[in-house]
Amino acid sequence: MSADHNANNLSHSDEATGFNGLPAHVWPLNARRQEDGVVTVAGVPLGEIAEEYGTPVMVVDEADFRSRCRDMAAAFGGGDRVHYASKAFLTTAIVRWVDEEGLCLDVASLGELTVALAAGFPPSRIAAHGNNKSSDFLRACVKNGVGIVVIDASQELELLDLIAANENCTQNVLVRVKPGIEAHTHEFIATSHEDQKFGFSLASGSAFDAACAAVRAENLRLVGLHCHVGSQVFDAEGFSLAAERVLGLVDQLFDALGEEISRDFSVLDLGGGYGIAYVEEQKGLDVAAVAADLIGRVNRHSKELGLPELIVKVEPGRAIAGPSTVTVYEVGVIKDVHVASDRVRRYLAVDGGMSDNIRPSLYQAEYDARVVNRFVDGEEVDSRIVGSHCEAGDILVSDATYPNDIATGDYIALAGTGAYCYPMSSRYNMFTRPAVVSVKGGNTTLMVRRETIDDILALEVM
Amino acid sequence: MSADHNANNLSHSDEATGFNGLPAHVWPLNARRQEDGVVTVAGVPLGEIAEEYGTPVMVVDEADFRSRCRDMAAAFGGGDRVHYASKAFLTTAIVRWVDEEGLCLDVASLGELTVALAAGFPPSRIAAHGNNKSSDFLRACVKNGVGIVVIDASQELELLDLIAANENCTQNVLVRVKPGIEAHTHEFIATSHEDQKFGFSLASGSAFDAACAAVRAENLRLVGLHCHVGSQVFDAEGFSLAAERVLGLVDQLFDALGEEISRDFSVLDLGGGYGIAYVEEQKGLDVAAVAADLIGRVNRHSKELGLPELIVKVEPGRAIAGPSTVTVYEVGVIKDVHVASDRVRRYLAVDGGMSDNIRPSLYQAEYDARVVNRFVDGEEVDSRIVGSHCEAGDILVSDATYPNDIATGDYIALAGTGAYCYPMSSRYNMFTRPAVVSVKGGNTTLMVRRETIDDILALEVM
Repeated sequence: MSADHNANNLSHSDEATGFNGLPAHVWPLNARRQEDGVVTVAGVPLGEIAEEYGTPVMVVDEADFRSRCRDMAAAFGGGDRVHYASKAFLTTAIVRWVDEEGLCLDVASLGELTVALAAGFPPSRIAAHGNNKSSDFLRACVKNGVGIVVIDASQELELLDLIAANENCTQNVLVRVKPGIEAHTHEFIATSHEDQKFGFSLASGSAFDAACAAVRAENLRLVGLHCHVGSQVFDAEGFSLAAERVLGLVDQLFDALGEEISRDFSVLDLGGGYGIAYVEEQKGLDVAAVAADLIGRVNRHSKELGLPELIVKVEPGRAIAGPSTVTVYEVGVIKDVHVASDRVRRYLAVDGGMSDNIRPSLYQAEYDARVVNRFVDGEEVDSRIVGSHCEAGDILVSDATYPNDIATGDYIALAGTGAYCYPMSSRYNMFTRPAVVSVKGGNTTLMVRRETIDDILALEVM
Repeated sequence: MSADHNANNLSHSDEATGFNGLPAHVWPLNARRQEDGVVTVAGVPLGEIAEEYGTPVMVVDEADFRSRCRDMAAAFGGGDRVHYASKAFLTTAIVRWVDEEGLCLDVASLGELTVALAAGFPPSRIAAHGNNKSSDFLRACVKNGVGIVVIDASQELELLDLIAANENCTQNVLVRVKPGIEAHTHEFIATSHEDQKFGFSLASGSAFDAACAAVRAENLRLVGLHCHVGSQVFDAEGFSLAAERVLGLVDQLFDALGEEISRDFSVLDLGGGYGIAYVEEQKGLDVAAVAADLIGRVNRHSKELGLPELIVKVEPGRAIAGPSTVTVYEVGVIKDVHVASDRVRRYLAVDGGMSDNIRPSLYQAEYDARVVNRFVDGEEVDSRIVGSHCEAGDILVSDATYPNDIATGDYIALAGTGAYCYPMSSRYNMFTRPAVVSVKGGNTTLMVRRETIDDILALEVM
């Protein structure tokens, strides 16, 4: 089989429509519905994967992931300017893809760093994040030659300086600034307003103080500033406004410190948060357009302020990993529930749920779900996809309209599950974590095997 | 050391007050603050456990867990009437405690059943739950002689009947009824209103139909009905009202089916949901009083309806496991954040977070947190306890007032973490799951070892 479009494959949404369509801006690049109704990703029928690896199973379109890496690098002027935020989805295979595509990598814990290094990622292209980095983590960063540590607190600055001194080296750092911009997004995942744990406040002057302290710390080299306006941001304004505020701080710092800072300072890291479309009605951010606009504005504003041209870096996680992956479930119990005297809601239970995807419960996240083993064309009815956990809140798709001929045994896939699903997965109700497979050019590769109860019992001292 | 109160130990809250107190209705039975300010559980200083096993670490007061098992059994008239809901917290040690205390056990998946059987729990005292039980799960129930399967859907009823026929046996079952009572609790964890996945509607007649079908199924024996009004219920009215409604259905069924049903029917299972106090201001449900009241009302109402006296069963999970356990963290970065021009909030970062306790993020759950290695007595300041995850919503205690002399390196413990924390724990940011230890009579036993990055990498196909 081949991943290329061919006569047997309908394109994303042209021929098959309605529930049988696959919105191209939501589904992986190489997802197709064939003329027989079967959905393939990179030429592999999802039903075949489900039968071979069991359900739930996560299927990653490797070419989709890689193409988004390349698009980001192209948009921002090079892979050295794009840090993949590994918290979104981290396996050793993913680390290798990111490396091969020439991107940099963000880690936010000693565990993430350990996995990245185990996969052979060059430490010099790693940046380390975290609001409460342990001394072990900081030490590992310094000892392994991690490219950049993003400093988040005064205590950390002092500790890192000390660790670098003990290791006889100078650590490149960014200082994380809270610019006080609250992007329009879900309350829980906005991170740039003042009342949150990350960074130094611009308004209160603590960001200025921290940057000065970093410049003057003997074993640190301040190479730039960092900010992050939120997650699932669709409004490019937020990035620009944050950038302008941070540039204001750069200007202040250059004024105050002169050459002491200007000789090393080159980076403006604007973080992540690039929104993706989870459902048909949403539009993902046009990354190339936003990047061009953003870089243009930063350059103009820098010029106005008499600053040198800065390198704009970004840290996409979801925007790279999210659309690459679908989760395939098997439909089990189907139940019609009278939710009012004149209204029935069809409950479609699948064999996973909040253990493999907590995002609907945690963030009221929405997903696009389709039957992937055949065409369905029944009458559309109010429907809800629920998981199999012993909890009423275990809902994957809360409120949708699906054909009424979806049947027990059908495979349903949710698109856009590549970010924050597997990393946040639990063993609730002793459900074991799903297998993760990648597909490319008609071939399937097991990336992460399904967990077993033996894996769980292996931790027990019996 | 001894778990008994002694002269060196202050009692829960008499001598030590304010932030140094340990509210007795929130903390484990054997938690004490010593005269030197150190908090012990069952005689073991929490700081010692933290140093031996690392942080975060979960510490289970075994005697607390067991005493709540006994209290429940006493309140409801015997261990055969109390099913510990293992989804709240399940390890093989816990299964053995539940067994030794003579209680029954609820499982809600093949995984939970497998762990229960691995720990040697008698299958006849197990009940099986779930809205979408797999055929493997149902088959394992029948083959292993699981005492009761709680039927949740028509498809399941037919499948179970078939499986029992193939195994040449008769399976005891309950039918799960949605009585249409919505207890006052958090929206996500209420499970008795109509618009949810569990059970058969009483109002629509589908519960009646399902019970009739169970009675008539050749290889099933309907021994009673089941309902569940919600989680963290503090209002005993909800249980009574649900019981009365379900008794109405029993009456209908007895009328319609006569001896066909009455010879086997003996159980009214009212599920779980008994609320516990997570913070000082809350009051846990008085289980003995509620049980006496509930059983009295059920008996009176049964008599009025001319029904035989039914066995009232309950399924506490949180009410047994919740208060037994504390999670100990080490305080890391401390940051004062200006949340308004005239207001500062102190952010105390600890070395765990939403990976080991998702409940604050998921349910806006509150917790009682105390420094456990010493007295603190500074001025009280607005405070927030946050985790170390790369996410602004990673908050453990959102809004509290703590003394301002809490310092980096102090140990903070959150009480009431015995239910729905470890089972829902994730590896977000490659944080590995905490160690779980039990304490009893001055001794510490490792129940579940801390996960390692090697455990994570072992799943990978590298």
